[in-house]
Amino acid sequence: MNTNPQTAGPDASVSGPFPDTLGVSAAQARSAVLEELILKDPGRFRVLTGDRPTGRLHLGHYFGTLHNRVRLQDLGVEMFVVIADYQVLTDRDVADNLTGYVEELVLDYLAIGVDPARSTIFTHSAVPALNQLMLPFLSLVSVAELNRNPTVKDEISNSRQSAVSGLMFTYPVHQAADILFCKGNLVPVGQDQLPHIEITRAIARRFNDRYGGGTAVFPQPDALLSSAALLLGTDGTKMSKSRRNAITLAADEDETARLIKGAKTDSERHITYDPSTRPEVSSLLLLAGLCQNRTPQQVAADIGSAGAAALKKTVTEAVNEYLAPIRARRTEYAQDPAFLRQTLHEGNERARAVADATLAEVRAAMNSHYY
Amino acid sequence: MNTNPQTAGPDASVSGPFPDTLGVSAAQARSAVLEELILKDPGRFRVLTGDRPTGRLHLGHYFGTLHNRVRLQDLGVEMFVVIADYQVLTDRDVADNLTGYVEELVLDYLAIGVDPARSTIFTHSAVPALNQLMLPFLSLVSVAELNRNPTVKDEISNSRQSAVSGLMFTYPVHQAADILFCKGNLVPVGQDQLPHIEITRAIARRFNDRYGGGTAVFPQPDALLSSAALLLGTDGTKMSKSRRNAITLAADEDETARLIKGAKTDSERHITYDPSTRPEVSSLLLLAGLCQNRTPQQVAADIGSAGAAALKKTVTEAVNEYLAPIRARRTEYAQDPAFLRQTLHEGNERARAVADATLAEVRAAMNSHYY
Repeated sequence: MNTNPQTAGPDASVSGPFPDTLGVSAAQARSAVLEELILKDPGRFRVLTGDRPTGRLHLGHYFGTLHNRVRLQDLGVEMFVVIADYQVLTDRDVADNLTGYVEELVLDYLAIGVDPARSTIFTHSAVPALNQLMLPFLSLVSVAELNRNPTVKDEISNSRQSAVSGLMFTYPVHQAADILFCKGNLVPVGQDQLPHIEITRAIARRFNDRYGGGTAVFPQPDALLSSAALLLGTDGTKMSKSRRNAITLAADEDETARLIKGAKTDSERHITYDPSTRPEVSSLLLLAGLCQNRTPQQVAADIGSAGAAALKKTVTEAVNEYLAPIRARRTEYAQDPAFLRQTLHEGNERARAVADATLAEVRAAMNSHYY
Repeated sequence: MNTNPQTAGPDASVSGPFPDTLGVSAAQARSAVLEELILKDPGRFRVLTGDRPTGRLHLGHYFGTLHNRVRLQDLGVEMFVVIADYQVLTDRDVADNLTGYVEELVLDYLAIGVDPARSTIFTHSAVPALNQLMLPFLSLVSVAELNRNPTVKDEISNSRQSAVSGLMFTYPVHQAADILFCKGNLVPVGQDQLPHIEITRAIARRFNDRYGGGTAVFPQPDALLSSAALLLGTDGTKMSKSRRNAITLAADEDETARLIKGAKTDSERHITYDPSTRPEVSSLLLLAGLCQNRTPQQVAADIGSAGAAALKKTVTEAVNEYLAPIRARRTEYAQDPAFLRQTLHEGNERARAVADATLAEVRAAMNSHYY
């Protein structure tokens, strides 16, 4: 854990080509440039990333984003990981089992290699100065902009709530506060999150224009698109905590074998990688390939005409072998609740120090330091 | 200044008849009941009140609300006075001269008799834990409810901004946080603010239902309607900082005389109190009456047919005599900037302690204390 509160971080956006309104292909091109810059000088980046504590993380999360976070950390990029406990309430009335799910998340993070000596794991609700940024930031966006946000529209249509809450509606603004409180300038996201990042960039830009007096208080963060393909769940639909079709990092070897054995495939004995016509088989091949650092085509070639049973055996072994060290670390950390608490405690302390320093800058820029 | 941080305050709403959705006449009846309860037991009430730092306070503010606050304080009701610096941004892009206006407000408060030993004067932006309440509270209101709010609709139509900001849209939710952070259970308001208080009551009720587990974390605050009549500005329209038609508390005797001399009247020499047909003359009579603790009819009878000039002379003398001690105190305090800073510093410390304690309760109720 970094105990020296720096808000300094990288104090401006990373230079490079960047249009104000990003299409996906532009974001992909920009991400390729960013990857090169990261390799050259990881110290100029600070990543903000995180998860809502709504259940254990699964392989979809792992190969979609978690693995990439650890890669960035290990390249030397400083990382803040927010456990977004308030944001659980954007699409449901009550956050169930919050304490349990927060602990599971910390365990998952530690197990996959997030290193609390280099990365700051903290809970949203423990950092008042971060949340206070909501107020000035809300003054910088219009209701029309919030109404237009396509990701919020999607999330609203998937919500468990009958009415759209004020928290859901203002979600992109909290996310801006989450990113900007630590002056994060790099946010690993999927394509669906690009509109949120655009709002964060607009808020940073407008704050600087209105209050910065020529200096940039906030960076305009870059979206870092991952190239990871989407893994399907065992039922052939999107892998998701709530659909009970996911293999969690915490599952044991037997449960993993049982889940993969029950996975949907097709009746064609010859195994081929063809995501458009054979999505379920292809997703299993992809999963095995990701675990074995091979292409899904290579995995398919090895199985040939041995059929779905052989495919499932290969996938099970690949997943269990890949996850073995992660699961071993998870079991070890689970036996040390004091260490979990300490990790969160220190992460929260560090996040608070960073947030307090940023808020002091914000209040100075807005001339609201009165004594 | 109370240095002992109590969030205890009154821990539930004051009992009494109270329908959930208040018409104005019901609110008036309820306010009469509340006045009796205040006289009997002022210690069961905690008032939240305040102002936006957008300029010096004037006689419209004074007889509309300030005088009433000091009355409540002197009856023994505990009071929190928020200087709502963030809320300046609800209807304009930038808060001008914030430091100056905050100082003017503190001076006005001290001059009229707000006693920092009994009442807590603080600035909104200095209390992160208060502002954090925005997040859970936003989860308790729907976008539809915010859209329906008639006061926000009015404020939007009077706004200086071209687009409605997120801060304006969520205004009733900040106001709920302002009131509930200190468990305020009494809010002196005008009729136009009743819809806001309804949202605060709904938020308190829903929070208690959802998270209280049988105990009320928050009171459902009561609106205390004042019976004060509206004073017109010198141009015959509503007295307002932004219309330059107001007599400020800080104005000197000559400026007061000049402003009243220029006030709009009518050509009828016989002075009578008739607000519907002679609004300007009647407002001047009301002002003199308020200063002299007489009815406007008594003031009118004394002037008789002496005409507008005599009326203005009476009003000028009444105002200058009434404000003399307030202005003397204001001048005295203005010479002691260290005391002003200290007042605000101590008020902010006290508000932060109260807000931190409330937030700790909120986090415990929401099960977001993880270590």
